[in-house]
Amino acid sequence: MPLSVPVLPEDADPAWLPPEAFRPLGGRRTLIRGSGPLVETVHAEVAEACARFGGRVVRDPEPGAPGYDLVLELTGAEESEAFTFLREGGRTTVTASGQAGLLYGLFHVVRLGEEAFAGEPTRRNHRPAVALRMVDHWDNVAVHPVMGQVERGYAGGSLFWADGRARREQARVRAYGRLLAACGINAVAVNNVNVHETEAHLLTDRIGEVADIAAALRAYGIRTHLSVGFASPLVLGGLPTADPLDETVRGWWAEVTARVYEAIPDFGGYVVKADSEGQPGPFAYRRSHADGANMLAAALARYGGTVHWRAFVYDHRQDWRDRTTDRARAAYDHFTPLDGEFAANAILQVKHGPLDFQVREPVSPLIGAMPRTRLAVEVQATQEYTGQQRHVCWLGPMWSEVLRFRPAGREPVGELARGGLVAVSNVGDDPFWTGHPLAQANLYTFGRLAWRPDADPGDLLDEWIRLTFTPGATSDPGRLEAGLHAVLDGSWRTYEKYTAPLGVGFMVQPGHHYGPSVDGYEYSPWGTYHFADRDGIGVDRSVATGTGYAGQYPGPWAEVYEPPDTCPDELLLFFHHMSYGHRLHSGKTVIQHIYDTHFEGVEEVAEARRAWAALVDLVSPARHARVAERYEEQLRSAREWRDQVNSYFFRKSGVPDAHGRRIY
Amino acid sequence: MPLSVPVLPEDADPAWLPPEAFRPLGGRRTLIRGSGPLVETVHAEVAEACARFGGRVVRDPEPGAPGYDLVLELTGAEESEAFTFLREGGRTTVTASGQAGLLYGLFHVVRLGEEAFAGEPTRRNHRPAVALRMVDHWDNVAVHPVMGQVERGYAGGSLFWADGRARREQARVRAYGRLLAACGINAVAVNNVNVHETEAHLLTDRIGEVADIAAALRAYGIRTHLSVGFASPLVLGGLPTADPLDETVRGWWAEVTARVYEAIPDFGGYVVKADSEGQPGPFAYRRSHADGANMLAAALARYGGTVHWRAFVYDHRQDWRDRTTDRARAAYDHFTPLDGEFAANAILQVKHGPLDFQVREPVSPLIGAMPRTRLAVEVQATQEYTGQQRHVCWLGPMWSEVLRFRPAGREPVGELARGGLVAVSNVGDDPFWTGHPLAQANLYTFGRLAWRPDADPGDLLDEWIRLTFTPGATSDPGRLEAGLHAVLDGSWRTYEKYTAPLGVGFMVQPGHHYGPSVDGYEYSPWGTYHFADRDGIGVDRSVATGTGYAGQYPGPWAEVYEPPDTCPDELLLFFHHMSYGHRLHSGKTVIQHIYDTHFEGVEEVAEARRAWAALVDLVSPARHARVAERYEEQLRSAREWRDQVNSYFFRKSGVPDAHGRRIY
Repeated sequence: MPLSVPVLPEDADPAWLPPEAFRPLGGRRTLIRGSGPLVETVHAEVAEACARFGGRVVRDPEPGAPGYDLVLELTGAEESEAFTFLREGGRTTVTASGQAGLLYGLFHVVRLGEEAFAGEPTRRNHRPAVALRMVDHWDNVAVHPVMGQVERGYAGGSLFWADGRARREQARVRAYGRLLAACGINAVAVNNVNVHETEAHLLTDRIGEVADIAAALRAYGIRTHLSVGFASPLVLGGLPTADPLDETVRGWWAEVTARVYEAIPDFGGYVVKADSEGQPGPFAYRRSHADGANMLAAALARYGGTVHWRAFVYDHRQDWRDRTTDRARAAYDHFTPLDGEFAANAILQVKHGPLDFQVREPVSPLIGAMPRTRLAVEVQATQEYTGQQRHVCWLGPMWSEVLRFRPAGREPVGELARGGLVAVSNVGDDPFWTGHPLAQANLYTFGRLAWRPDADPGDLLDEWIRLTFTPGATSDPGRLEAGLHAVLDGSWRTYEKYTAPLGVGFMVQPGHHYGPSVDGYEYSPWGTYHFADRDGIGVDRSVATGTGYAGQYPGPWAEVYEPPDTCPDELLLFFHHMSYGHRLHSGKTVIQHIYDTHFEGVEEVAEARRAWAALVDLVSPARHARVAERYEEQLRSAREWRDQVNSYFFRKSGVPDAHGRRIY
Repeated sequence: MPLSVPVLPEDADPAWLPPEAFRPLGGRRTLIRGSGPLVETVHAEVAEACARFGGRVVRDPEPGAPGYDLVLELTGAEESEAFTFLREGGRTTVTASGQAGLLYGLFHVVRLGEEAFAGEPTRRNHRPAVALRMVDHWDNVAVHPVMGQVERGYAGGSLFWADGRARREQARVRAYGRLLAACGINAVAVNNVNVHETEAHLLTDRIGEVADIAAALRAYGIRTHLSVGFASPLVLGGLPTADPLDETVRGWWAEVTARVYEAIPDFGGYVVKADSEGQPGPFAYRRSHADGANMLAAALARYGGTVHWRAFVYDHRQDWRDRTTDRARAAYDHFTPLDGEFAANAILQVKHGPLDFQVREPVSPLIGAMPRTRLAVEVQATQEYTGQQRHVCWLGPMWSEVLRFRPAGREPVGELARGGLVAVSNVGDDPFWTGHPLAQANLYTFGRLAWRPDADPGDLLDEWIRLTFTPGATSDPGRLEAGLHAVLDGSWRTYEKYTAPLGVGFMVQPGHHYGPSVDGYEYSPWGTYHFADRDGIGVDRSVATGTGYAGQYPGPWAEVYEPPDTCPDELLLFFHHMSYGHRLHSGKTVIQHIYDTHFEGVEEVAEARRAWAALVDLVSPARHARVAERYEEQLRSAREWRDQVNSYFFRKSGVPDAHGRRIY
């Protein structure tokens, strides 16, 4: 008896799975072969589509029945997520040796639309390049007095948690799982990496609530992970220590983990933020982070679970007067000496840049620097520093640059991330899932890039547009697609233009991180400075005269970043302190670049706003209105960025704008 | 049957009324003549002192009894607070024609100590220069999510409110009333001028709670006032408008006020913050602030109540790009056209400076500019911008400068404040009342200055020291007094030195206002800017080239402030934008002044800390420890101010320190 497709809550946007996207499939005859829970999910999807569009689905071939348009066949009982797409003799066949593969094959057919049933004979093997494709939710169970229900969340409350516990009604969670599977994501961590008091108990007496969520996600091949606190043995177990080498502590974790797996047999594992921004960790016991991670890895190993150990370790109580400490160095300095010491199921989860999800950072030198350690690379779909889902900022091009970057000139990051690709989720209980409807494109693009890191992000955006806006249902698909590309394609670079320039980062309002404050973090303990004075700006991270950070890179990058004249413009102020008069490769001076990009950025937002407005007849009214309203705020905010940044640097440099534009 | 003296809660510091201060009185024979509640309070005070120190108090002269050392005699039934102090024939007599006068006369005797009973024959009339001497509490009933229990409070919770209602146990409130009376204060507003939802109801269904507080304060001659919201007729009365000229609205206020006086027959009146920082006001109905104030005055008039209408009206959503709008101008511009329109019992309450309680501001030009309006002058005892009771900052000298200032060269502010002197309270439920034990001196000094605005603040500090530290009980009173003067006398100027320079103000962390952030308010909507660039700093408020604010002053001040060369150094950047190289009257350049004062300020804090440490054998351990601990924070914070301000201006100006000291 097949499951049914999750019923979308009445107020929820269908995102990239509107019923219309299933029309090509739903009008045809489909044969499904094989059995198992995910095969039942596949069946339910096809049956639902057929019920809507008049097609037919069968499980056992009917003798004498007419041919099938589509065969979905499970050929084995492996764990594999791969599938083969075959177009031959007027029939389309998807085969997979594992149930998850069949599910991904189905969504592949949905993505292709009519194309799946037409064209030349073809045979393609599909297989995810990265085995773990994960979203981490920074959701709190109890509303945090400062951070709210979802830390750095800009899409309403939590999908999973409300009123201090797991939601009883999980329709939205099931629908979320379906959306995730359709873009290739197979793992979800359901709570904030900053594990507060209430949330600590999810590991033990409240594991049943996690199990409920896991049950809702399981039907779409998604495993559930849990953020846990390193101090749990003290906080929950009443032990006098959390020392990772203490046998009692290790026993406590083994026992607790056994109970977790009793409740959730396919539990994914733990996520840990330790010795980071005030969270407890192994340093308190003079143990290494490998000791800490391996203790949890040992508890998880027998069940096939993994521990994701975050590498976000730095001194967040730095003295701004101290120019020898460089936060950008911290992850590399802390972790590279431990290469080879981590257990096979301990994954070191590294942010893609050395600081913290700025609009422009170099790729973290830690990636590629620990060949004997499984690394996961973490990106941030939630737009903490990129407009907080009030601004359009499609991050596909940035992530693609990161994933294609070749740290030592050899394998790209997408291959080095053997431990997985992880995005901090941008989803909440907002009807549009992501607050800003166009921010859905970030989640979709992440999932697809995690499956295939070398994909062209523009192609993925095309997929998202075709699915989400179902151009088949609109009068002018060409104009709609062109309009959406116009507002999305360049939106990341536009955001970069009107915010902090040339890779220098931050310049945001302290605390909430929205809007400009050029000196907001300049005299703070957080280690994120720009050192602007009347003559110049930027952080000297060279080996010769600076913090030495550039030397953490292997060749060829150490050589590229070390001297200002080979350092790419967009990272110049990240690596060097430059005079305002320094001429960039672009031919502009630093100061004129600042002025120009800030004026351009605002103009580009105004232009995108007009482009969106012109789509009013092609987009559903609710979605159009929501985006239009956010463009008002984006434009206001972009102007504020432009004027504050330009005024700040004009006041400091005294250099007038070459084009005589208004600077306050 | 006399009342008893309030019993101090066990954890509460006796402040300036330790039992020892009553020894000279308590060891003698006192005759009290007259009757009435405040006479009973006087009796209770004397009886308590006699019980402790062996003296005697009687109400009816005993025939044949020996002479009395002290006679306290009520000679009339007036409302007067005046008293006469007479020393004659070895006897001390205090006479008063009103009960409150007798109470103040008693505390005068306490202050004099042994001196009251010795020396030459003398006769002195004492009468408060200012009839209303008030503290305004910015206390919330319900804890505000951002502002807490007490807005801008640095002394624990509220004295009056806890757990969402008036405290049931009012011992501390009674003891507070006694302390207030002993320094001359006769009015208290018991709730925040920002009237939130819960607090609105104090006016109507929760007036009983206010009556309980009023009862506790009444025994010491203190009248209770209430902050009310202008929108009360809508919020509480369910009316469709709060238009002050609407008859229904006026009727509603009349009725509500009648009920307030039923509950509290000696109720003082209302305090109103209208059209200010988001609070509702008459502007919504196109009515003037006189219309608004007079409506409430009309409701209060028949009962002898007054409305205190705050003049803190300005645009708090200013565009920082707009240099034509000057917040400093706002109160004058808003209110002077209304002179003569306010009812006799409507008091316009004006902050002493035109901005907001900065460590240095000129006196508000509104004071003296409305001869036909009763003005009250408001100062801030709670140290919002002056170290938040973690720093020692005795404000007596600043307030004295304000009160002695002669706006038109004639009457000083202390005389022009015919509507009263008001301090925002610095008191909470902290055992030391004010958090920092030395901040008690601010409250004491305020009360005494309100009584006699031309008093020498140093004399008042002497009084406070002798009462509080009861030198009679210490082994080395000279060293104690000298030490306390060393840490307190110059503390305001020391604070000024290490914070924002030359009257420019602000440069504080946004929101909580503690600690430095030079650009913290520079690009904000709050109207408080310094306009520092690479060449200079300051706000041009001249008539000739600036905002014209200087022209709001009458002669001679308009002429003094208008040109930089006659403007006093300490206000130079308040009135003018000056180059860093400009030479002050002191002979120093602006930039060197900034460096020098910031280095000096920190040294002075270090010196004061040492002076306090040296008093360890003369001060009670709890008090000594509390102050010592806060000096650690003050020194840390002062260094942070020094380094951030110096670095900021060095980076901007490029001018090195003439003495080569370390700037980061």
